[in-house]
Amino acid sequence: MLYSRLFGKTVKHVSEEMTVVSHKYLYQGGFIRESTAGRYYSLPLGMRVNDKIIKVIEEEMDRAGAQKMITPVLHPLELWEETSRAKTVGFELMTIQDRRGAKFVLGGTAEEMMVDVVRKFNVSYKDLPFNIYQFSQKFRDELRARGGLLRVREFMMKDAYSFDRDAQEFEKEYQKMWETYERIFERLGLKTIVVESDNGYIGGEYCHEFIVESEMGESKVLVAQDGSYAAHEEVARFLRDAKNLTEKEKPLQEVEAKRGNKMEDGVKLHKLPLWQQLKDFMVVDENGRLILALIRGDREINETKLKHVVKANTLRHATETEIRAVDSEPGFISPVGVNHKKVLVVGDLSLKTVRNFYGGANRKYRDLLNVNYGRDFTVEFEADIGLAKAGDLTEDGKSVLDEKRGIEVGNIFQLGTHYTDLMQGALFTDQDGKSKPFYMGCYGIGVGRTLATIVEKYHDDKGIIWPKIVAPYLIHLIQLGNSKSVLEVAVGLHRQLEEEKIEVLYDDRENVSAGEKFADADLIGIPIRLVVSEKTLKTSAVEWKGRGEKEVKLVLLKKVIGEIKTWLKE
Amino acid sequence: MLYSRLFGKTVKHVSEEMTVVSHKYLYQGGFIRESTAGRYYSLPLGMRVNDKIIKVIEEEMDRAGAQKMITPVLHPLELWEETSRAKTVGFELMTIQDRRGAKFVLGGTAEEMMVDVVRKFNVSYKDLPFNIYQFSQKFRDELRARGGLLRVREFMMKDAYSFDRDAQEFEKEYQKMWETYERIFERLGLKTIVVESDNGYIGGEYCHEFIVESEMGESKVLVAQDGSYAAHEEVARFLRDAKNLTEKEKPLQEVEAKRGNKMEDGVKLHKLPLWQQLKDFMVVDENGRLILALIRGDREINETKLKHVVKANTLRHATETEIRAVDSEPGFISPVGVNHKKVLVVGDLSLKTVRNFYGGANRKYRDLLNVNYGRDFTVEFEADIGLAKAGDLTEDGKSVLDEKRGIEVGNIFQLGTHYTDLMQGALFTDQDGKSKPFYMGCYGIGVGRTLATIVEKYHDDKGIIWPKIVAPYLIHLIQLGNSKSVLEVAVGLHRQLEEEKIEVLYDDRENVSAGEKFADADLIGIPIRLVVSEKTLKTSAVEWKGRGEKEVKLVLLKKVIGEIKTWLKE
Repeated sequence: MLYSRLFGKTVKHVSEEMTVVSHKYLYQGGFIRESTAGRYYSLPLGMRVNDKIIKVIEEEMDRAGAQKMITPVLHPLELWEETSRAKTVGFELMTIQDRRGAKFVLGGTAEEMMVDVVRKFNVSYKDLPFNIYQFSQKFRDELRARGGLLRVREFMMKDAYSFDRDAQEFEKEYQKMWETYERIFERLGLKTIVVESDNGYIGGEYCHEFIVESEMGESKVLVAQDGSYAAHEEVARFLRDAKNLTEKEKPLQEVEAKRGNKMEDGVKLHKLPLWQQLKDFMVVDENGRLILALIRGDREINETKLKHVVKANTLRHATETEIRAVDSEPGFISPVGVNHKKVLVVGDLSLKTVRNFYGGANRKYRDLLNVNYGRDFTVEFEADIGLAKAGDLTEDGKSVLDEKRGIEVGNIFQLGTHYTDLMQGALFTDQDGKSKPFYMGCYGIGVGRTLATIVEKYHDDKGIIWPKIVAPYLIHLIQLGNSKSVLEVAVGLHRQLEEEKIEVLYDDRENVSAGEKFADADLIGIPIRLVVSEKTLKTSAVEWKGRGEKEVKLVLLKKVIGEIKTWLKE
Repeated sequence: MLYSRLFGKTVKHVSEEMTVVSHKYLYQGGFIRESTAGRYYSLPLGMRVNDKIIKVIEEEMDRAGAQKMITPVLHPLELWEETSRAKTVGFELMTIQDRRGAKFVLGGTAEEMMVDVVRKFNVSYKDLPFNIYQFSQKFRDELRARGGLLRVREFMMKDAYSFDRDAQEFEKEYQKMWETYERIFERLGLKTIVVESDNGYIGGEYCHEFIVESEMGESKVLVAQDGSYAAHEEVARFLRDAKNLTEKEKPLQEVEAKRGNKMEDGVKLHKLPLWQQLKDFMVVDENGRLILALIRGDREINETKLKHVVKANTLRHATETEIRAVDSEPGFISPVGVNHKKVLVVGDLSLKTVRNFYGGANRKYRDLLNVNYGRDFTVEFEADIGLAKAGDLTEDGKSVLDEKRGIEVGNIFQLGTHYTDLMQGALFTDQDGKSKPFYMGCYGIGVGRTLATIVEKYHDDKGIIWPKIVAPYLIHLIQLGNSKSVLEVAVGLHRQLEEEKIEVLYDDRENVSAGEKFADADLIGIPIRLVVSEKTLKTSAVEWKGRGEKEVKLVLLKKVIGEIKTWLKE
């Protein structure tokens, strides 16, 4: 490929707002361009990387026995209504109507579609298991897009869906996909942490995310130092250390408390530790239900966990009016004497690690001392609603949790019969002649985000350093000067490489300085740079430099193809 | 691949409404399923064919130097407004709004997008020409979908866009794409007729369609018997044969005419030939403009041509009220005495081939005799607005036109500076330092329609007969019976073929009759069927049958791989 003909040239300067490295280099190198916020063109260079990532994913999915197919982009809205996902908040769905009035969803994930096509067939247990997948454009009506390809509104995703007889068979498939994902990311040069995660709008009981550690990531994960446990912050479990359990329960006491509404105000007033204070959150769900969440004063509530416990889609803080309407007082909320018919009370496991809590008394400027869980108040749910943080112990107490940031490049979900129970006729005939719902899983990889993540991991201050397997071209051939001999050798080498089907980008530009050509080569990040100049020709050689290396070497012209082939096999 | 694990099995019976062969077999064979009307799933078998068609197109586009990239599916509506295509009737556009209020078009073609991404770069004449293309999902809000993959609402299309300095350079690119398309369709086993066609909503001055002859096609084309000319009916030119030009012009005469409104009524009443009658059509365009189109009585008006002449997007028949409002009379319309300020008059070239027309007199039951063009009436446009038909002569009079039906599988368009004039900043810097608009072309191939067309051409009464290059698998391996020796050989052969990377579908089903397995193999249409049974093993052989052939032959087990390899090279 001649660089002079390539559509999508490099750009020297970028806006200072482009702070994410992958965004900056992919823009500068001519890999992508933004259409509108969060919607990108892949330019020819970017497309080549894209296609190579797709090829690796496809090879590994096929090796695992999965079958590629494709669904329409427009999903009939009825299908999403069958599973009640059309109205689920949190999933940023776009809908559209055609001129005959038919309504559609722009596909975000394709569980309903895949179940719908499968139920068009009479499937017997003999046909199971199977796993069908597609590469297709997905849409998310995100309020904010950011960071180039890291969070977008439209993207190419590989999504796979497995259909099994039962949980037992499914576990094998889940394990197989887990291993397949590990192999995919390993081949792509990405080291992943597999963490337990929240299933969000997908449904099902458990799922895992594949996270690549990076400061640019939006995912916060907790990883045990001994490697025994890893989970997304949203679901991470941890051990609540016992505080003053040796203390005896003292009599409940109400006192005057002229203090502000903050936790510290209570600490100051009563001169007692933060952990001994009772933290109360009054929240309201999408159905107007009032929920009082309780936790030890030194811990934070994990909203995702709380939502799961109370089966809510959204939660917001209760207003002052709502708090007073249940005979309480903002800043002085207490579970003691709460009307359980009006308020659902949820207590974190940490309530059991403290004796003689202090906190509000449901009246302004009045606090309670020596509040004891079980004796003075009860809860509807005693559950894990606490947010883990670095330094916490794992549940078994054997290891310490570290906090890491990372980019989620893939995820795998157990769906069970969540969809096949909701969608009519999503059944197979089992060996005993009975109709049973399919047991499902789903498995996603975002292609563009994976591409950006590779750049986040493989770059220096001059540009990208593509791993061989996804490099847009393998050889970046540069001619310096326009003398007849240089041109002849460069053109000949270009032709020879193309004949050998070794992907080469040939910078054939005239009147462009060596410095500029080298800077472009570093920015684009092709693994091997070959330079032909008067100087190299003096020894009948070309200059060879690995993108990630500092040293250059001279390779005899007659040996260069051989040396490239050796390198290719490495 | 084990047939037992394949998702998408064959179906014995189909609805009688499924009359299009490709639709029927692709459904029955398990290649496609409908989601909603005009939107299809490609099942794993269909996907394999799809991918192979894409591979051929991609190889040939790359060989021609085109560069693959991709645009978002959602196009900012502003871009379509820049070129005034957002409101163009005839293009079945779907629009959508995101929750921030941004409006988008679901991409039908991508001229605006491609121009938009190109204008983001400072392009110099040195960077030209280039041709960028994509495979992406396209949307058409068709009122009617029909015939499986032949006319759909959502489909995968390869669309390419070339950017050139000027018309002269462009012609080379157009020629190159023409030849590339011929090579693509030839490799796919499709014989195409290249016809001049209408540019419709795309714009530009000329374009060509690649048509595969088929009764199932929606395109009617006229082809000269000597091969000198081929054109879509919408644009086909032809010679108007002179009628009575030797006759003298007679005096204009008004007579009573108690007749109906049909052409034949005039013929009967006046006992004069149909061709001598003046055919008048009063139509109204989208801006309410009244247009009177005139043609010789034995010819039909070509609405597409008429639209181009008067530069209208849509035309409808004038109402009786509208006709009377311009002092005329339905069934008795005449150009004689028409008010040219109120009505635009267009006359077909055929007006010049007849003397002494007869026809209406703009009053009920009154006709005119001996109406002569030029003497008794004039027109604003004398133009080719006639519909060609079989038996007409080519314009040069040297050959006869035949009428053929066909399927449009591809098209190539000259766009010129149509888009780059309308879109701001779509300029390159020419050698003289001046900014000039790009000179463009665009080039489309519908992947699904091409797939269906292959089936239309390659099938018999039992099913599909895939050409090797696009077959979902190359070998259909069947085991008959479940004896240990049969299983051992079949499983071994399957493994061997997979190791040799020869694509094989292995019908491993137990308790399925030979007849059923053979019927499925015929339906699916894989090129080579191999059967392993007790009988074939008696001679240490397998039975070999080409899908398109009647004879079977026995091939020794130890020679079968070699024979397949020989066949692959054919």
